[in-house]
Amino acid sequence: MSVTEQESQLNTLTQKMVEWRRDLHKHPESGWVEFRTATLVADKLDKLGYELAVGRDVICAESRMGVPEEEFLEAQKERALQQGALAKWIDAFDGGFTGIVATLDTGIPGPTVGLRVDMDALDLEESSDCQHVPEQCGFSSINHNMAHACGHDGHTAIGLGVAHYLMENKAQLCGKIKLIFQPAEEGTRGAKSMADAGVVDDVDLFIAIHIGTGVPDGEVICGSDNFLATTKFDVNFHGVPAHAGGNPEKGHNAILAAAQATIGLYSISRHCDGASRINVGVLNGGTGRNVIAQHAHLKVECRGENNDINDYMFARSQAIIQGVAQMYEVEYDIEVVGAAQRSIPSPEWVTFIAQKANELQSFSKVHHGRKGAAGSEDATYFMERVKQHGGQATYMIFGTELAAGHHNDKFDFNESVLQNALILLSKVVIEAKEFA
Amino acid sequence: MSVTEQESQLNTLTQKMVEWRRDLHKHPESGWVEFRTATLVADKLDKLGYELAVGRDVICAESRMGVPEEEFLEAQKERALQQGALAKWIDAFDGGFTGIVATLDTGIPGPTVGLRVDMDALDLEESSDCQHVPEQCGFSSINHNMAHACGHDGHTAIGLGVAHYLMENKAQLCGKIKLIFQPAEEGTRGAKSMADAGVVDDVDLFIAIHIGTGVPDGEVICGSDNFLATTKFDVNFHGVPAHAGGNPEKGHNAILAAAQATIGLYSISRHCDGASRINVGVLNGGTGRNVIAQHAHLKVECRGENNDINDYMFARSQAIIQGVAQMYEVEYDIEVVGAAQRSIPSPEWVTFIAQKANELQSFSKVHHGRKGAAGSEDATYFMERVKQHGGQATYMIFGTELAAGHHNDKFDFNESVLQNALILLSKVVIEAKEFA
Amino acid sequence: MSVTEQESQLNTLTQKMVEWRRDLHKHPESGWVEFRTATLVADKLDKLGYELAVGRDVICAESRMGVPEEEFLEAQKERALQQGALAKWIDAFDGGFTGIVATLDTGIPGPTVGLRVDMDALDLEESSDCQHVPEQCGFSSINHNMAHACGHDGHTAIGLGVAHYLMENKAQLCGKIKLIFQPAEEGTRGAKSMADAGVVDDVDLFIAIHIGTGVPDGEVICGSDNFLATTKFDVNFHGVPAHAGGNPEKGHNAILAAAQATIGLYSISRHCDGASRINVGVLNGGTGRNVIAQHAHLKVECRGENNDINDYMFARSQAIIQGVAQMYEVEYDIEVVGAAQRSIPSPEWVTFIAQKANELQSFSKVHHGRKGAAGSEDATYFMERVKQHGGQATYMIFGTELAAGHHNDKFDFNESVLQNALILLSKVVIEAKEFA
Amino acid sequence: MSVTEQESQLNTLTQKMVEWRRDLHKHPESGWVEFRTATLVADKLDKLGYELAVGRDVICAESRMGVPEEEFLEAQKERALQQGALAKWIDAFDGGFTGIVATLDTGIPGPTVGLRVDMDALDLEESSDCQHVPEQCGFSSINHNMAHACGHDGHTAIGLGVAHYLMENKAQLCGKIKLIFQPAEEGTRGAKSMADAGVVDDVDLFIAIHIGTGVPDGEVICGSDNFLATTKFDVNFHGVPAHAGGNPEKGHNAILAAAQATIGLYSISRHCDGASRINVGVLNGGTGRNVIAQHAHLKVECRGENNDINDYMFARSQAIIQGVAQMYEVEYDIEVVGAAQRSIPSPEWVTFIAQKANELQSFSKVHHGRKGAAGSEDATYFMERVKQHGGQATYMIFGTELAAGHHNDKFDFNESVLQNALILLSKVVIEAKEFA
Repeated sequence: MSVTEQESQLNTLTQKMVEWRRDLHKHPESGWVEFRTATLVADKLDKLGYELAVGRDVICAESRMGVPEEEFLEAQKERALQQGALAKWIDAFDGGFTGIVATLDTGIPGPTVGLRVDMDALDLEESSDCQHVPEQCGFSSINHNMAHACGHDGHTAIGLGVAHYLMENKAQLCGKIKLIFQPAEEGTRGAKSMADAGVVDDVDLFIAIHIGTGVPDGEVICGSDNFLATTKFDVNFHGVPAHAGGNPEKGHNAILAAAQATIGLYSISRHCDGASRINVGVLNGGTGRNVIAQHAHLKVECRGENNDINDYMFARSQAIIQGVAQMYEVEYDIEVVGAAQRSIPSPEWVTFIAQKANELQSFSKVHHGRKGAAGSEDATYFMERVKQHGGQATYMIFGTELAAGHHNDKFDFNESVLQNALILLSKVVIEAKEFA
Repeated sequence: MSVTEQESQLNTLTQKMVEWRRDLHKHPESGWVEFRTATLVADKLDKLGYELAVGRDVICAESRMGVPEEEFLEAQKERALQQGALAKWIDAFDGGFTGIVATLDTGIPGPTVGLRVDMDALDLEESSDCQHVPEQCGFSSINHNMAHACGHDGHTAIGLGVAHYLMENKAQLCGKIKLIFQPAEEGTRGAKSMADAGVVDDVDLFIAIHIGTGVPDGEVICGSDNFLATTKFDVNFHGVPAHAGGNPEKGHNAILAAAQATIGLYSISRHCDGASRINVGVLNGGTGRNVIAQHAHLKVECRGENNDINDYMFARSQAIIQGVAQMYEVEYDIEVVGAAQRSIPSPEWVTFIAQKANELQSFSKVHHGRKGAAGSEDATYFMERVKQHGGQATYMIFGTELAAGHHNDKFDFNESVLQNALILLSKVVIEAKEFA
Repeated sequence: MSVTEQESQLNTLTQKMVEWRRDLHKHPESGWVEFRTATLVADKLDKLGYELAVGRDVICAESRMGVPEEEFLEAQKERALQQGALAKWIDAFDGGFTGIVATLDTGIPGPTVGLRVDMDALDLEESSDCQHVPEQCGFSSINHNMAHACGHDGHTAIGLGVAHYLMENKAQLCGKIKLIFQPAEEGTRGAKSMADAGVVDDVDLFIAIHIGTGVPDGEVICGSDNFLATTKFDVNFHGVPAHAGGNPEKGHNAILAAAQATIGLYSISRHCDGASRINVGVLNGGTGRNVIAQHAHLKVECRGENNDINDYMFARSQAIIQGVAQMYEVEYDIEVVGAAQRSIPSPEWVTFIAQKANELQSFSKVHHGRKGAAGSEDATYFMERVKQHGGQATYMIFGTELAAGHHNDKFDFNESVLQNALILLSKVVIEAKEFA
Repeated sequence: MSVTEQESQLNTLTQKMVEWRRDLHKHPESGWVEFRTATLVADKLDKLGYELAVGRDVICAESRMGVPEEEFLEAQKERALQQGALAKWIDAFDGGFTGIVATLDTGIPGPTVGLRVDMDALDLEESSDCQHVPEQCGFSSINHNMAHACGHDGHTAIGLGVAHYLMENKAQLCGKIKLIFQPAEEGTRGAKSMADAGVVDDVDLFIAIHIGTGVPDGEVICGSDNFLATTKFDVNFHGVPAHAGGNPEKGHNAILAAAQATIGLYSISRHCDGASRINVGVLNGGTGRNVIAQHAHLKVECRGENNDINDYMFARSQAIIQGVAQMYEVEYDIEVVGAAQRSIPSPEWVTFIAQKANELQSFSKVHHGRKGAAGSEDATYFMERVKQHGGQATYMIFGTELAAGHHNDKFDFNESVLQNALILLSKVVIEAKEFA
């Protein structure tokens, strides 16, 4: 292919990525109900000639976390169909098993390279401010209280862009390519179930990506390691109600238990091996001022600089909640609704990618790593699995200018990042054979 | 009037009371927005020839507690007009000043007798069970999440019945009669503002009433003294949000403050002079699992066997909340949204009423008092005010069979209680001159 | 006996009571180690001709509470012998079984009347102020940190006085007389073990006494009912120490558990049936600032207006402590070190005593009962046991002027109360046959 | 000096250091009362020809922390004199100003090199086990509950050894030498007051030392950076006592405040910039089970990976304690009794020292730094002060075999460390002129 042909190909693909991204942005879908997104993605990959594995074949049912109620799943499937989900594909994702693995086996010896993108949106009402670009350009969310305010629309578009590019340049490839489209990254709920299904067990070289996160436009992080291991869990206390004036001693006070648990959780000791976190982000309890509360609900998360510290935090949390329930003689249940791990990028693989990024001369700055603890990412489950099986893994961040921070109702990004990511990722995949 | 005439008059009135009660039951209105009820009551009393004082003339604006937002008041006025509120009267109650005092001054020397009933309903969805009498007979609530599940519809009907009876038997009266129709008894929000407006300052003999409350059908309590003084208050903590993973130290945690306040409130010391109570009935805080909570809201009430004990409980509560805000460096506000006092019925007045009840020979049992602490009642503000001005006051309970307990969605009462109350109250008012 | 003889007998006895009281005051002994007191009392009663039961015969070993360590018991026995305890009697009280029951069986039909006094002193350093009467008159405590600052020296002297008087007037008696000298009333530790040993099972009419307690000089309470049921208990938390800087997560924090338990205990709900109390009076934990505390110790007491409320408080306390131990993964133990009951004096018996007191015309005021909850008294165990066996029981208080309140280092009383008590108690015992 | 001479000189000095160390070990003295130690050290340095500054000249009175009561200081001075403190020097240290700075100004241009050792012992009863070497060899502590169980006896001996060696080899020196003998390192109480007095303001190159701390025999750490900044503080809550049964509401509960403060302190949020610590190591409150506690005392410490984090912890601690006092309406005071900083060793200076250590070929291993957070050290105040004035500073650790860990009653070290330290420190001081 000539340079002009390549440029023309790139421009066409970039236009498509923008188009896809905007279509996805307009139709954001929550975790485990990405029915429209998944059917469109599957259809495109299928038509390109990828071998597809979808639904329960790539998602371990027992490992899914934070799955909505059956009724909600059904209603969302209906909604998706009305918004253009493809009927042909929809049954494949029934029950909210909205994951896809597209494989291209070249038959030529070479490494198996895996790329993971995520597809879900956030429970957030997108801004209707006329200055907000998606509003201006007519692609802002049509779904109530749902928005692509974290950039996963871009991730999916990049995944599709790479899928097209690689197929169009199949001749340059060897080994196997696995493109993973993951549901329910928000709340770190989905990756574990795909990793547990074994979809990366044969992957030698793995990349997960994110755009934005404060990295300036035109820069790239080749091995981001600022994620904390985390466990997200809900706690319910079930007490016995009583009239607060007439029979206070008859009540088993769920609010009092929740308050005590909250304080107890924050009192978990620091760990000498590194950073830990605990947060009770939501506490709701009780129905009436003069009733001793029967129910209380907490949304909690703990984190740790490594998996052991996070395990320690979660173990201590469970002991505290159990003890508090005993103190106030209330029942309780704990449900894990999300989890992610710490996973250190493989240094050689990061170095290789950084070298490729530098060769491109299109990035203003190429970083190996990045400092400063921040949020959590469940792509770490894939990374750890790959490393356990002898592979190498990394997490890349493509910088881009943001209109507003992630999870903000005015979040938007500079779409030029799509091409930046496409070019580097494709180059890395194609040249991965050079990596010893 | 002959006995037959009297009986016929009573039967007619009883029928009317049932009719009124059912109309009110079908159109329940929340505290401070009893626009339909108030206009209908005012109109009837006006037509009977009572001298009326209404709205701001009988309600001290500064003393109102738990008044809804302006917007809600307006919407409810609109709703009331659509449901038959009388346009002629409605401006008199503008801004939610939905109280009425109807006076009959005989010009003949004699005591001033005051009778207080309440008009508001509860924020509760009435049962649509076909066995539920109001549903069967077509007078169940048409207002969403609003129901006369405490019997105030009956109280208002009794008030109107007594108004009719007294006017029809005006010749037997002397002194002055003051009929008080109070808004917002639920949450003990309204009485203080009417007492502060001075509406009972000239009352020599005062009666407030309730039906039901566990007293068997056909029995009457002439001096109920099982109310605890109480203060109902809302607490808001306003913190500073922060990402729980990225910048935990930047957060000023409103949930942690609310939890600590809850535990602190329950740790207030017992009082050696008698019973006290504290309850955090509702606690809601936070928006997202991974955000250090910016806001938390508590619905709290304290109570005391006497006013001093309740004052002690509230003073300690305030100190604790202030201290907790300081601990966690959050802002806070406390809003008193309801209050009631302890008020011991005047023994001689109770004895006189009991004697009249016994004379009727229609009650299966006549009780002077009743044991067992229970809820709270803001009629106590009227009682204390009357006693401070040298008068005597009591709180009566007319027993009746209940389909389900107060504040239950299937609450309903045996309407025969309306006549029982009418007869005794009228007799007591007419013969009050005998009371030295 | 002539009036003069009687007077002379009384004066002699009064002198003796003062003498005994001062001797006991000078040699105060803690609960369960009243070795000197018990041997002297036993010897006197034996010489008077009473039939004695002592030590393990009148104390149920399993029911003793708050017994000191073996070593302390031995050391105190030694101390007692050096201070004049009678070697002849001391083995009878070995192991701290320092109780005595002296019986006089007249052989003549009549009621069995029981009188209980207590013998132990307080862990308190007596004032050495020269204005303090015991100091002035040379009978202040010679035992370090031990003082008769509650009046039990007076009680024992009264018991001995009554013993003498009755024996001297044996001819007037019928039925049976049982004089009970109880150890370890402070901390409410001793009575249960004597009641459980059955020493009052045959008692028809029972009296326990106290002097002072705020009752004015010359007045008498014939049926004091202002005691709360109580349970006194010690709690130990045993954690795992760790360096607070180096390995904070390895610590199982006993101080944190103790703090949480304290707050949890104060948060136990009020009881609708009456007064309750909870207090953590002492909390000691930890050894060094930079060590996560291994041990913490709490001294706790709960109380209730009746035995059920106290049982509720203690059951809730146990649940809270167990739950807290679970929260912080520490071991714990709870030891009950004292207990007392609520016991309502038998009204007829109180009335009879009041009548006898009035007949004497020597009391300035004779009260049937007294209001105002206060402390706790383990004589209630005897009272409840007597009533369970069909007898009648009361608790009397003899008023006297106090130099300072009970448990104060300058506590002292007007010794004229000794004679007042002697006269009335003797009269009541002698004339008890009149009580149907 | 010939090699033989040098060896002989070294052997002589080593024998002396052992002798001094054992004498100090036998006469351990607590912080601020090292009267015997200080007079002996001062006398030796004076005789060697050092220019001395002592007492208030080298200690800023306002900056001293955790100073004992006047009475204790006096008694200890007396004790010291009886144990051989030199009367000639003792007044120089009056009031517990037990610090010494010995200066040797060569007059030849060159850097000012400072060496700091500490002199105080621990409040701990030394083991009397016959296997314990100090016991075996007759130099175990003769002072009750006081022991050199941290090695400061060795530090002082090394300081004296270096003082001798340098004076004996004065010809090789240039610049200025400052030897600092610091009191009260335990509890991190003394260094700040000497640093604030300006004693290291002219120091270009600074070394503080420790022996042991887990570093194997024969190894040396040239730049130890595992100290956390810390603030040690005592908290007193002063409430109002009340009888827990009779007047619970009158009490202002100091134990409840202390418990709440404890829990509040542990709930201080983690800091995103690094490790933090909090510990309530001791909590004592209350006097009697049935009294609402009037007083409670807490020994607390916070720490931080850097000074800002520690400042954050202490600021939050103060806010919490103030808030808790407000909650429970008790008075409080906070006294800072110790503090230390984080101070990163100057890398070039560390590298220089490591090079010198390697040149000696007598250390089995030479480490630049060491990982793993641990305790705190107030030598960091000197280090920060030196660096602020443009100098370079480090903290060295000389490995040695320990009989038992620091602060253990059987702590003892292999005395060969004394010579190891002497040789390297002397070499570094002498050759410091090579350091640009």
